[in-house]
Amino acid sequence: MPSPPVAVAAAKALDRLRERRPRIHCITNAVAQAFTANLLLAAGAVPSMTISADEVADFVARADALLINLGTLDAARRQAIAAALEAAGDEKKPWVLDPVFVDRSAARADYARELLQRRPGAVRLNRAEFEVLADREFSADALKAFVLAQLTVVGLTGEIDLVTDGAQFVSLANGHPLMARVTAMGCAGSALNAAFMAVEDDGFLATAGALLVLGVAGEIAAARSDGPGSFASNLLDAVYNLDSETLIAKARVT
Amino acid sequence: MPSPPVAVAAAKALDRLRERRPRIHCITNAVAQAFTANLLLAAGAVPSMTISADEVADFVARADALLINLGTLDAARRQAIAAALEAAGDEKKPWVLDPVFVDRSAARADYARELLQRRPGAVRLNRAEFEVLADREFSADALKAFVLAQLTVVGLTGEIDLVTDGAQFVSLANGHPLMARVTAMGCAGSALNAAFMAVEDDGFLATAGALLVLGVAGEIAAARSDGPGSFASNLLDAVYNLDSETLIAKARVT
Amino acid sequence: MPSPPVAVAAAKALDRLRERRPRIHCITNAVAQAFTANLLLAAGAVPSMTISADEVADFVARADALLINLGTLDAARRQAIAAALEAAGDEKKPWVLDPVFVDRSAARADYARELLQRRPGAVRLNRAEFEVLADREFSADALKAFVLAQLTVVGLTGEIDLVTDGAQFVSLANGHPLMARVTAMGCAGSALNAAFMAVEDDGFLATAGALLVLGVAGEIAAARSDGPGSFASNLLDAVYNLDSETLIAKARVT
Repeated sequence: MPSPPVAVAAAKALDRLRERRPRIHCITNAVAQAFTANLLLAAGAVPSMTISADEVADFVARADALLINLGTLDAARRQAIAAALEAAGDEKKPWVLDPVFVDRSAARADYARELLQRRPGAVRLNRAEFEVLADREFSADALKAFVLAQLTVVGLTGEIDLVTDGAQFVSLANGHPLMARVTAMGCAGSALNAAFMAVEDDGFLATAGALLVLGVAGEIAAARSDGPGSFASNLLDAVYNLDSETLIAKARVT
Repeated sequence: MPSPPVAVAAAKALDRLRERRPRIHCITNAVAQAFTANLLLAAGAVPSMTISADEVADFVARADALLINLGTLDAARRQAIAAALEAAGDEKKPWVLDPVFVDRSAARADYARELLQRRPGAVRLNRAEFEVLADREFSADALKAFVLAQLTVVGLTGEIDLVTDGAQFVSLANGHPLMARVTAMGCAGSALNAAFMAVEDDGFLATAGALLVLGVAGEIAAARSDGPGSFASNLLDAVYNLDSETLIAKARVT
Repeated sequence: MPSPPVAVAAAKALDRLRERRPRIHCITNAVAQAFTANLLLAAGAVPSMTISADEVADFVARADALLINLGTLDAARRQAIAAALEAAGDEKKPWVLDPVFVDRSAARADYARELLQRRPGAVRLNRAEFEVLADREFSADALKAFVLAQLTVVGLTGEIDLVTDGAQFVSLANGHPLMARVTAMGCAGSALNAAFMAVEDDGFLATAGALLVLGVAGEIAAARSDGPGSFASNLLDAVYNLDSETLIAKARVT
């Protein structure tokens, strides 16, 4: 069986990530900050996390990509997001939107819709969050219509991860149920997505690559773990040690 | 020796927790957020943690129980707590108060006394915190008087954990000194208490059950650990894997 | 070869830390809070972390030393820092400044310069941060000049850690590259520095001792780790278990 092109591209992007060590600025919730930073460091990127509106523009200006995660949404956070997006837009930096928990609060959903109009390079979300933003039930057609309308890439994660930019489409079957038992796994995946955007211009390949690396590392980690505590540590180790051959051999891409 | 009824009830509540996967909204301090979320996930509950006053009511409305932890107490947090308690009261949702560090700040102690008047289903605290809120030295009588006056359940943790609702009383001898060497262990225990309140109507059994599960898991984890770092991981694994037989067999309840 | 005096002093300070269990109040960023608290607990200190300006003075008054870390710098944090320094100054408590990321934001650098005038007992930073605050390239002379001008101790961390108070100078070759792959390692090291200041009046010995303990524990942990996830756990275990003989035997001090 030939190596899937998405997996080969992911392996190359991971190599570039380790070589270039891009700076990723993350505006994310307090629950997710430490694990997100540790996942980025394990992969080879260099995180910064300040959410102070006074200085976020300085950090974004010195970063290679940006993550906007809506967790813990208050007035200060909105100001920081506005300042960060302005700085990113001025320099055409790639950014990823994680509209976490838009299914739990109408105010969040409205705000996420505003942010979508600012054209994130990619949106990483789960099915419940997708259905709120797309305002319809999930289907392959609904996903394609959403991506074409919003002019973005979507990485829709779940038991099977789906990634599409409207023209290209891939489904990724890697991963493990323990990933849902560690807080901020999705948030950290979105940050990894931003890191891949810093080293891969094709947003579809960047998004698929990040989710593939996380899924394969999750499988490797789960095989060594007794539960979610050891799994979280082992996942960071697995990302840190993942080599191209293993990534390509284990990728379940269709 | 017959199985202690508290341990049997704890095992049944843990089963229900894993089956029903209740949503627990936590207003807690930034130090504690990630470990608290991970403990809830390991036990089978689904955490949310936003502290934004704008949206906390939406989250509480969709949750099955609520934790109020006083760590990092500022104006924004007080607003969020007020909004959360209003939402919880409207729907008669169970909530747990963790008056962390009321012995370090008079302003916190005053605020905790206000919250006590809102009738938490349970209060989880340590001896120093108890003595400040009860305004007297600890004794079995002081504890009973406090519980009857406040019409709540108290889970007083320490080397031996004590739980009482005034009518029922239990002491739990499980646990391990390493639990005091991991930050937010008490805070996370209070969140687990809230999770048990979501699946067990008797607040006394819910509180005793949560503390028993944590104590037994702590002993199992300590036996495998080289220090507080591995212990924190192993504790999450132990909670995740804990079965009824082990819980009941290891319970040291009097 | 005789035991280096700095290592012997570090071992004695670590013994005192475990015996006296000093309270360390930390004003630090949300990314770093949990790991910082866990490192302090592993070493034997008792952390508190509130950043609420309303109550920080109460906490500092009950603490034995203070850490000021500039991560996530906003108006609320500046108020908290002002209140904390006032409380520390009133009681002449030792405090450590960690001017994290002053190389990324001019506003941070200005603020760090203001704080330097408040005379921290020690400043823990990396080379890029040093060069911004000293306003010149790093050299042994630049470091000495800075320390003498600021009347403080500097712990400059990197592949080799340098510690000086202008009169005494030491370089520490312990440590491991994985330390740079765990978020908040430097921040947590600064908190450990504050903990050592609580039990060792000589700021030079306190700073060198804290960095030495962290570096030696890092080497011990790395030898057992598969990557940054297991390393973070193992480091806490290694600090917890570190004995005087091992510390002195492994110290690479010149």
